[in-house]
Amino acid sequence: MIIDCHGHYTTAPKEIEAYRQKQIAELKESPGSRSKGTISISDDQIRESIDKAQLKLQRERGTDVTIFSPRAAGMGHHIGDATTSLHWSQVCNDLIHRVCTLFPQNFVGVCQLPQTPGVPPANCIPELERCVKEYGFIGCNLNPDPSGGYWKDPPLTDKWWYPIYEKLVELDVPAMIHVSMSCNPNFHTTGGHYINGDTTAFMQLITGDLFKDFPGLKFIIPHGGGAVPYHWGRYRGIAQDLKKPLLKDHLLNNVFFDTCVYHQPGIDLLFKVIPADNILFASEMVGAVRGIDPETGNYYDDTKRYVEALALSPENRQKVFEGNARRVYSRLKNKIPAGR
Amino acid sequence: MIIDCHGHYTTAPKEIEAYRQKQIAELKESPGSRSKGTISISDDQIRESIDKAQLKLQRERGTDVTIFSPRAAGMGHHIGDATTSLHWSQVCNDLIHRVCTLFPQNFVGVCQLPQTPGVPPANCIPELERCVKEYGFIGCNLNPDPSGGYWKDPPLTDKWWYPIYEKLVELDVPAMIHVSMSCNPNFHTTGGHYINGDTTAFMQLITGDLFKDFPGLKFIIPHGGGAVPYHWGRYRGIAQDLKKPLLKDHLLNNVFFDTCVYHQPGIDLLFKVIPADNILFASEMVGAVRGIDPETGNYYDDTKRYVEALALSPENRQKVFEGNARRVYSRLKNKIPAGR
Repeated sequence: MIIDCHGHYTTAPKEIEAYRQKQIAELKESPGSRSKGTISISDDQIRESIDKAQLKLQRERGTDVTIFSPRAAGMGHHIGDATTSLHWSQVCNDLIHRVCTLFPQNFVGVCQLPQTPGVPPANCIPELERCVKEYGFIGCNLNPDPSGGYWKDPPLTDKWWYPIYEKLVELDVPAMIHVSMSCNPNFHTTGGHYINGDTTAFMQLITGDLFKDFPGLKFIIPHGGGAVPYHWGRYRGIAQDLKKPLLKDHLLNNVFFDTCVYHQPGIDLLFKVIPADNILFASEMVGAVRGIDPETGNYYDDTKRYVEALALSPENRQKVFEGNARRVYSRLKNKIPAGR
Repeated sequence: MIIDCHGHYTTAPKEIEAYRQKQIAELKESPGSRSKGTISISDDQIRESIDKAQLKLQRERGTDVTIFSPRAAGMGHHIGDATTSLHWSQVCNDLIHRVCTLFPQNFVGVCQLPQTPGVPPANCIPELERCVKEYGFIGCNLNPDPSGGYWKDPPLTDKWWYPIYEKLVELDVPAMIHVSMSCNPNFHTTGGHYINGDTTAFMQLITGDLFKDFPGLKFIIPHGGGAVPYHWGRYRGIAQDLKKPLLKDHLLNNVFFDTCVYHQPGIDLLFKVIPADNILFASEMVGAVRGIDPETGNYYDDTKRYVEALALSPENRQKVFEGNARRVYSRLKNKIPAGR
């Protein structure tokens, strides 16, 4: 079985964007007057939006299950306030639940959190619990920069984040560390902010000792870990200068990387420096890059081809395509039993 | 000859730090009362600070010339105002000039610019001209984020920067795009902010068309290009989605990467995806990582070893170690004649 741990509902029906635009327009009114409102999308609309996109790509590329979350760039935590984020997250997560209910063999849910800049992330706990307990979601996306490119909240190692970590550990669900859209003109969202967010988060974890306090906490750093594997020597060296343990002991019991790296040399490097136990297959489809690479004739984000071109042992191949995802997302077995 | 294009005076005598602290203390006084002041460092102090550090490493590692600039983390453009930055830059650049005068065979100067957040970078032109024309410096460090981690000024493709680009082209000197210290607790300076700065700058250049306006402008992206070579497929794919030309045509006539990547697999990747014409040898010594890699027994930043382990043709080897630096830093020949 091939599990893709990083897919977003980037192809959702246009009603979701209309809802969001209405919500943003209503921000100009007084907070008291805002209601969550409703959104009308039929099952057929959802089926069509998935069938011709993510499901089509699953079939064509030969993957089985996608761990699926709302569009990351669309989380937009910097917009409005905590009420805005809560309503928007509930609507987005409900929609993911409907996808997973309509296609229970193909999609398993991961939730967006109702984060807001300057608001303690503890306020995300009810929505996290709702999604895990009521919907059977198996993880969440945690935005290390709800300000959208101005990095105003404390780093991930700060106690600011501890209440949500306690809940993640209690529920035994991992968080993918994933920023949202950039509203800073310096950062292109998918080419600058996403990659910087990954790099930044990992370096924060090096400087702290977060996993001493939370040995059961699990983070996935997407996009192949940002710049981290390419600069693995730099990070080992900085950790050493900071008198931290070896990175494998300091972080690699808790931190995992996905394979969203869109060319063979990048994937080769990832597997050369990061242990196979810490790599989860992913493609981020339908996502940041949608074209066909003229150098290969294949989609840039068809990452399965790159992984299959590696000389992996059968054991490591199984780990990367399935076993690690089952270990990190321990609740996955409730939705997709092993050996299906 | 082996030219290292990226070295900072990180070992300067302690008087320079005392000067800076006094300058910062004086910021509390009214701007009118501030004077540039003086700094007293003897030639012997400079000789000693270099001889036992950068020069010792040159000898031990077998490199010949270092293109040398003030400590990048020390630029601290976010501190004080334009007067603060001007005085500080002049003092730092004067010190680099003294190093280069004392060791004319080993060090060639690159200047710090007196940038200040919110102040048009055109105000850096006099200091750039002073360093190039009076001191014979061959380039400058350009900080894409003078705010030190809050990214408040316009992206590098904005006309905000055009006056300094015009002067760079007129003088025919390149800029290394190099951030300074991070004052944002989210970003570790050398492990987060530096690498993000590199990635961010390259992605800004993808989205713009800067080199149509400045075909003679040359940028060096340090630290192996941040995350860029590792995600070369992503960047090629994003450029394609944005209807930009192939990266080799869009950027690689003007953008160069250094080899400050501190492990063999990273260097292998860099040379696999980036043409040899666009790679300049560098070690960033004495810099971000100062330890010995227990996996190799050598210094992490002894990048010459990694480059020498590659199967480069003699022609490409000469380009990377010398020829590209001479091409990009065209004024280098005035200081270090070819065939010395």
